[in-house]
Amino acid sequence: MHLGVCYYPEHWPEERWAEDARQMREIGLARVRIGEFAWSRIEPEPGQYDWDWLDRAVETLHSAGLGIIMGTPTATPPKWLVDSMPDMLAVDREGQPRGFGSRRHYCFSHEGYGEEARRITRVVAQRYGQHPGVVGWQTDNEYGCHDTVQSFSPAARDAFRRWLAERYGSVAALNEAWGNVFWSMEYRSFDEIELPNRTVTEANPAHWLAFRRFSSDQVIRFNRAQVEILREVSPGRDIMHNAMGFYTGYDHHDLAQDLDVLGWDSYPLGFLEMFRFTEEEERDFARQGHPDIAAFHHDLYRGCAKDGRWNVLEQQPGPVNWARYNPAPLPGMVRLWTLEAFAHGAEMVSYFRWRQFPKAQEQMHAGLLRPDGEPAPAYAEAASAGRDIADLGAVGEAPKHAALIFSYDSEWITQIQPQGEGRSALWAAFSAYSSLRRLGVNVDILPPETELDGYSLVVVPCLPVMTRGLADALKRFDGEIVVGPRTGTRDTDFAIPSGLVDQEFADLIGGKIVRSESLSDRLQIAGDGWTAKGWLDHYEGEAEPEFVAGSGEVCSYRHGNLRLCCTWPQGSMFERLVERAARDAGLPHEALPTGIRHRTCGSTRFTFDYLTAQISFD
Amino acid sequence: MHLGVCYYPEHWPEERWAEDARQMREIGLARVRIGEFAWSRIEPEPGQYDWDWLDRAVETLHSAGLGIIMGTPTATPPKWLVDSMPDMLAVDREGQPRGFGSRRHYCFSHEGYGEEARRITRVVAQRYGQHPGVVGWQTDNEYGCHDTVQSFSPAARDAFRRWLAERYGSVAALNEAWGNVFWSMEYRSFDEIELPNRTVTEANPAHWLAFRRFSSDQVIRFNRAQVEILREVSPGRDIMHNAMGFYTGYDHHDLAQDLDVLGWDSYPLGFLEMFRFTEEEERDFARQGHPDIAAFHHDLYRGCAKDGRWNVLEQQPGPVNWARYNPAPLPGMVRLWTLEAFAHGAEMVSYFRWRQFPKAQEQMHAGLLRPDGEPAPAYAEAASAGRDIADLGAVGEAPKHAALIFSYDSEWITQIQPQGEGRSALWAAFSAYSSLRRLGVNVDILPPETELDGYSLVVVPCLPVMTRGLADALKRFDGEIVVGPRTGTRDTDFAIPSGLVDQEFADLIGGKIVRSESLSDRLQIAGDGWTAKGWLDHYEGEAEPEFVAGSGEVCSYRHGNLRLCCTWPQGSMFERLVERAARDAGLPHEALPTGIRHRTCGSTRFTFDYLTAQISFD
Amino acid sequence: MHLGVCYYPEHWPEERWAEDARQMREIGLARVRIGEFAWSRIEPEPGQYDWDWLDRAVETLHSAGLGIIMGTPTATPPKWLVDSMPDMLAVDREGQPRGFGSRRHYCFSHEGYGEEARRITRVVAQRYGQHPGVVGWQTDNEYGCHDTVQSFSPAARDAFRRWLAERYGSVAALNEAWGNVFWSMEYRSFDEIELPNRTVTEANPAHWLAFRRFSSDQVIRFNRAQVEILREVSPGRDIMHNAMGFYTGYDHHDLAQDLDVLGWDSYPLGFLEMFRFTEEEERDFARQGHPDIAAFHHDLYRGCAKDGRWNVLEQQPGPVNWARYNPAPLPGMVRLWTLEAFAHGAEMVSYFRWRQFPKAQEQMHAGLLRPDGEPAPAYAEAASAGRDIADLGAVGEAPKHAALIFSYDSEWITQIQPQGEGRSALWAAFSAYSSLRRLGVNVDILPPETELDGYSLVVVPCLPVMTRGLADALKRFDGEIVVGPRTGTRDTDFAIPSGLVDQEFADLIGGKIVRSESLSDRLQIAGDGWTAKGWLDHYEGEAEPEFVAGSGEVCSYRHGNLRLCCTWPQGSMFERLVERAARDAGLPHEALPTGIRHRTCGSTRFTFDYLTAQISFD
Repeated sequence: MHLGVCYYPEHWPEERWAEDARQMREIGLARVRIGEFAWSRIEPEPGQYDWDWLDRAVETLHSAGLGIIMGTPTATPPKWLVDSMPDMLAVDREGQPRGFGSRRHYCFSHEGYGEEARRITRVVAQRYGQHPGVVGWQTDNEYGCHDTVQSFSPAARDAFRRWLAERYGSVAALNEAWGNVFWSMEYRSFDEIELPNRTVTEANPAHWLAFRRFSSDQVIRFNRAQVEILREVSPGRDIMHNAMGFYTGYDHHDLAQDLDVLGWDSYPLGFLEMFRFTEEEERDFARQGHPDIAAFHHDLYRGCAKDGRWNVLEQQPGPVNWARYNPAPLPGMVRLWTLEAFAHGAEMVSYFRWRQFPKAQEQMHAGLLRPDGEPAPAYAEAASAGRDIADLGAVGEAPKHAALIFSYDSEWITQIQPQGEGRSALWAAFSAYSSLRRLGVNVDILPPETELDGYSLVVVPCLPVMTRGLADALKRFDGEIVVGPRTGTRDTDFAIPSGLVDQEFADLIGGKIVRSESLSDRLQIAGDGWTAKGWLDHYEGEAEPEFVAGSGEVCSYRHGNLRLCCTWPQGSMFERLVERAARDAGLPHEALPTGIRHRTCGSTRFTFDYLTAQISFD
Repeated sequence: MHLGVCYYPEHWPEERWAEDARQMREIGLARVRIGEFAWSRIEPEPGQYDWDWLDRAVETLHSAGLGIIMGTPTATPPKWLVDSMPDMLAVDREGQPRGFGSRRHYCFSHEGYGEEARRITRVVAQRYGQHPGVVGWQTDNEYGCHDTVQSFSPAARDAFRRWLAERYGSVAALNEAWGNVFWSMEYRSFDEIELPNRTVTEANPAHWLAFRRFSSDQVIRFNRAQVEILREVSPGRDIMHNAMGFYTGYDHHDLAQDLDVLGWDSYPLGFLEMFRFTEEEERDFARQGHPDIAAFHHDLYRGCAKDGRWNVLEQQPGPVNWARYNPAPLPGMVRLWTLEAFAHGAEMVSYFRWRQFPKAQEQMHAGLLRPDGEPAPAYAEAASAGRDIADLGAVGEAPKHAALIFSYDSEWITQIQPQGEGRSALWAAFSAYSSLRRLGVNVDILPPETELDGYSLVVVPCLPVMTRGLADALKRFDGEIVVGPRTGTRDTDFAIPSGLVDQEFADLIGGKIVRSESLSDRLQIAGDGWTAKGWLDHYEGEAEPEFVAGSGEVCSYRHGNLRLCCTWPQGSMFERLVERAARDAGLPHEALPTGIRHRTCGSTRFTFDYLTAQISFD
Repeated sequence: MHLGVCYYPEHWPEERWAEDARQMREIGLARVRIGEFAWSRIEPEPGQYDWDWLDRAVETLHSAGLGIIMGTPTATPPKWLVDSMPDMLAVDREGQPRGFGSRRHYCFSHEGYGEEARRITRVVAQRYGQHPGVVGWQTDNEYGCHDTVQSFSPAARDAFRRWLAERYGSVAALNEAWGNVFWSMEYRSFDEIELPNRTVTEANPAHWLAFRRFSSDQVIRFNRAQVEILREVSPGRDIMHNAMGFYTGYDHHDLAQDLDVLGWDSYPLGFLEMFRFTEEEERDFARQGHPDIAAFHHDLYRGCAKDGRWNVLEQQPGPVNWARYNPAPLPGMVRLWTLEAFAHGAEMVSYFRWRQFPKAQEQMHAGLLRPDGEPAPAYAEAASAGRDIADLGAVGEAPKHAALIFSYDSEWITQIQPQGEGRSALWAAFSAYSSLRRLGVNVDILPPETELDGYSLVVVPCLPVMTRGLADALKRFDGEIVVGPRTGTRDTDFAIPSGLVDQEFADLIGGKIVRSESLSDRLQIAGDGWTAKGWLDHYEGEAEPEFVAGSGEVCSYRHGNLRLCCTWPQGSMFERLVERAARDAGLPHEALPTGIRHRTCGSTRFTFDYLTAQISFD
């Protein structure tokens, strides 16, 4: 594994570049990501390129021995470009155009901007694509950040109509698939179809799902256009993109098919503050992040990535600027996060960023260096992590223990129609993952179309759309299976199947879900030493009740090697259920103390202590 | 009383219709509501009608012995109609047009749509108005649902100006009535008057009140146009409309004057989750709904209805899809709700809906049948309720105990100017109603212009606009009277009367309210074993203090047969006050245990136990 | 000190005016503010003035012996004026124009309205500027109320571009100062710069700060135009404006330079409900207001005012209408507030308003008279306060104890970039002020460019932009100094200084802040008998740690006569720190019981008891 850093030579005097590069090498960094926000410096006037400064920066970094990952600058088109075609701005859900003045100010469906993005990609690739110092490319930056996948522009509407025509063939087929008869929503042609925003009450969920799929496809298409240019002009370099945390705006399984390496940006403290953690977790792990945040994404994106190649393109090195509260990591956490990524198989961890820029939007976001150029605390931790990794050398491959199944369209379905506030597939996956991790086992997070050979245990926390591949794989699977609520209850167009659940899934569970309730957290269902809550699927079939509440609710069933969890996959009942499944699967496990997590690679077992920031190997 | 069901033949294969009708009859249903969302099937292209399918559906249902309630399909105009006049869409409070893709996408003031609504009403009425199977009509569907009464469109603005000119005669009279001199808001002509949205800070409350009245009148006018056509083309059939719960967007007393039967849609579990109930109530009654939700609306809409004819046009049969959380009713509740409606005098209870449609916006909303056509739990409960009703036969008329006075303009005034967050007349009425019901007495909820003969007790929880009729009736009334805060403190244009309260009301209370305070719930006023809160009216006059707090606040006064409650009509002080009034009125009462409610009809006393879903008669 | 009242003769029959004036004099009022909302009566049609009524009103008040403060009516332009140029309406942050129908419906940057405002000011001044009864002028009314300083209109955008060109000279200088290279936000000309609203994610904080400064300057410019006319046409009269509470939309230090007297509008109960007080404070002081609300603003605006001349242009006399809950003041509070203003040096306290108007937006806002013309409780309290003041006669000057430094741009910076939710300079100032007041000492709140001679103690709670004048004054200061977090960490364009803190400030603290953390309130830092929270600045330098937490965090340092507080200036640690500083400064102090506050003037020490509304002098 390499360590790297994100660097913005355009922020600093040229005199400093060589010293920066020297220091990077000194603390063991081998990679440097540059260029992704530099369009206004590369092309200060339309068609007038200024390559000199970037040529010198590349040369300086290369000659210091650093491998350069060059970013295409398409996340930050300059003002002159926006002024030349103001309708390239995305339109928000309320129907108003978004503005220039930060970043990601473009609509993925705007053909004019698509052309400009390809042009700048091509000229940058032509300039540096063959440079020996350039070892990889990052396309754009954080697709979807700041809620930018969906645009409600005329361009998006027109493209959506074309996309629908392509997918459904006839408008009659679309009307039938979506059930548009319901409220006289039937269309006579694709040109009558609007985007699903601003409807009087919620739009047809099938309408939203199609729009989510379309919007995701527009991202994939935009990215692929850059990838094709880069593969043509700069062959042999790894192409990557930096995904985000707890983000499902586009289908990462799809995106990853066009990349060599799937990267992601790991900010455990910010994520803890901004996402759905309890007050207690926010207090106890304020300076560490919840112990499953980083690992969940490592395991998720490894499962998305083609050939399993992934990295951390941005690693939090200190306080950030964008969460509600921004504390500093506990001393040792930067090293811990780095080694944890290594244990989970990252090819690289790249710190964001080399030096804190004293101006503009992220002026309060730490770097390895302070704004005054002196080392920040992470500087020494990065160096220390580099030494640890060198000492460890290659570790063996991670053995397969548990597989957890997640799909992006399942998350979209549960976002569009949570039925109970906050019940979404992503968070079902996260809590199920956390339950597995507290047993000390390795977890792979896999797409539905996957192979399950070699695993002892498969958990499907919440997967409304059962796929043929997964149904078949589960049928063949001889380990233990745990399936959570809502699974198999939708076809690909959001309809409830005629048999209430997917036919093959019905075979697997020996019955069907005949009724679903969503429950507020006020309604605790209590059994013998356990509680469950949040949801209740009512089952009819031949499976045997396993966890039954004192008040009679059957919270789970067992059918052969499969357990069906009818409540939300969270809480003490679900933990016991997973523990039983692990036991029945013969999977060695233990109940880990608070804050402790394991990861096993070959004969090495890593132990990460999130309470103290200590790491040990045995 | 009849039982009925809402049915959508257009959702299901024609082969199934006869079997559906047979099953309906089998479980004792006599009425079926159809057609209200079927415009796109009735008129798939502009001016091209497709009656065949609906003819056959009507025939199938009729020949099975079901009485059909036909809906006019005006809540869901098809896309081609919207595209032909896009400005028929309502405009939201922010000034942006709302979109097609769900329902109720029209502005009540748009003349072009008004014409189209009359056209489709006429052709449907012409087709089925004389059919022997058609026993009634429902106009449109749930006027106001999804916040659709108010539209801030140019059409609404122009109509509002005309409405104001009609009401005030001269703009000088309007300026005077509204007090427009206050902030130089004086108009020189009606054409200078804008809608009250998007003002820099709140608009003149008189401006809002006029707009609320105008908006309500537009609904009445829209509905009346359909009623006139139906009466002409389909004489002898009952015309009805389905009102909603806790909804005051238009004046239901006004609407009901044009209808034969006022229906409403009863969803106790959804209402519990979505309206202002305490966490404790949401937990304890999650599967039942608060025990006063259904009865409050039964008694309210019976009081609105011309000749007291009312029904339940939609009855919740299982989990719904639109509340924050959507649990299933406790076994027995569907039967209980049905019999409770019967006890309160409903002509019909119609379950929504026959069979759960596996697609579109309400795919998670239960029916009597599951999506796969098998019976859902409510199926047997409906059958059981039908048998109970048959067994009971006719019960006697409900004796008059307590009358509770409520007016829609009082609610508008307290919404426009709550003065204290959440203090509104509707919720004052609900809590006062609940206090009466916990004494086991019958309650009638009546408009201010009413007769009070025969009642023992009259409660006026919060009625800013005292009417001449009510003041006179109260003067003549020889039972006990309880009057709550803010009553009589406004004229019809929102002004404080010159004597601070309405002159006749001043006579009734022997004084006046000289100052009002709204209090947060943090400020509890405590007396000897009781507490009060929320509001404090300061009284000057000859009435005697009755409930006086330890800290000196006079929370209520007594003046002859009238008690004046100066705090919000809620909590233990108010309960004692009402209990004393019942006692003084010689009205038999008792303190009912949690969850128990009575309703007395003739010699039968119904007891409904909301904790166990049990019903008994004695 | 004079007492006065706000009066609206246009609300009442002319027959009543003389009696009103007589009563005003009877209870000791000497000043009456009129005219500020009367444009539609002064100029009912474009260019047609109606002076008669106002002439008679002025004459009536004058002949009763009242000194008149005349308002320019520019806060409420009439509808005909708006219709003549609809683009005079301000545009909200979402880009939509705001509407007519309340007040303050104008954009400060609209040149056409600027001209109209000058025209109406001139004609009113010409009419009454030499009248012997007119003793002062109020410009407009509550600049900024209802969030009206910022407008995102084309007029504002164009003016902003001109303002930027003026300030920065070249766009290159602006790009450099703002760090626009960061996300390719570089501009090629000032004409490319947009307003900072509607950006995809947050705009550059330097962009926002410039826009805040520009918007403030537009207010100053608008006001100055009126002041110049008034000085020309009505010389020798005091010109004033009424500022608001907890409001920082424009720079009050700047505005006050153009005024003779800075007024403010004191509504302690409303402010308690609407601003950031704890539930406990809201309960305990519901009828009094937090005991530092009024005094904080007295001391703040006295420090803003040229020559220290200030007054209370509106004093709450009873319940208001605009807070979430609106209780009545405890008996005695109106008198207490009046005398407290006197003790803090007010030239006048003017009650808002004479008589409660029974209509329009403020119909629930109390006056000295009720709507029916009878005295409200405040009537007698005002009279009583007047007698007290007469009895007291002149009190000596208030001795200098503690100075507290606050600047508006520091507040803007912490609002734009709180880094931790809710951490703003104004509230740091308020809590530091409260800590000082609980020691019983006099506090002056001063701008950074100030003299510190004569004070024992200086507190700088949170001042990101250190000024040369303050740095020099602190260096020379030989009393005790307390400095809070973020101080000295920004240059005037929002950049972090090259040495991390301002160079002169670095000398003062003997080091620098090298890292800042914002902490949620969940993270309590506990020391020996104290707690701290909210923020943690990490310091490097030669100062000595003073308060050190059990877990090792250094919460404050001492360096010579300066204490550096690294946590938020709130809570028990900060209180101890301030108490130590007072002790070291030799400043007599004591720990006051809850609700008790002192103010010392000459040899008189006032004691105000907020729990009982008692006042004593010794």
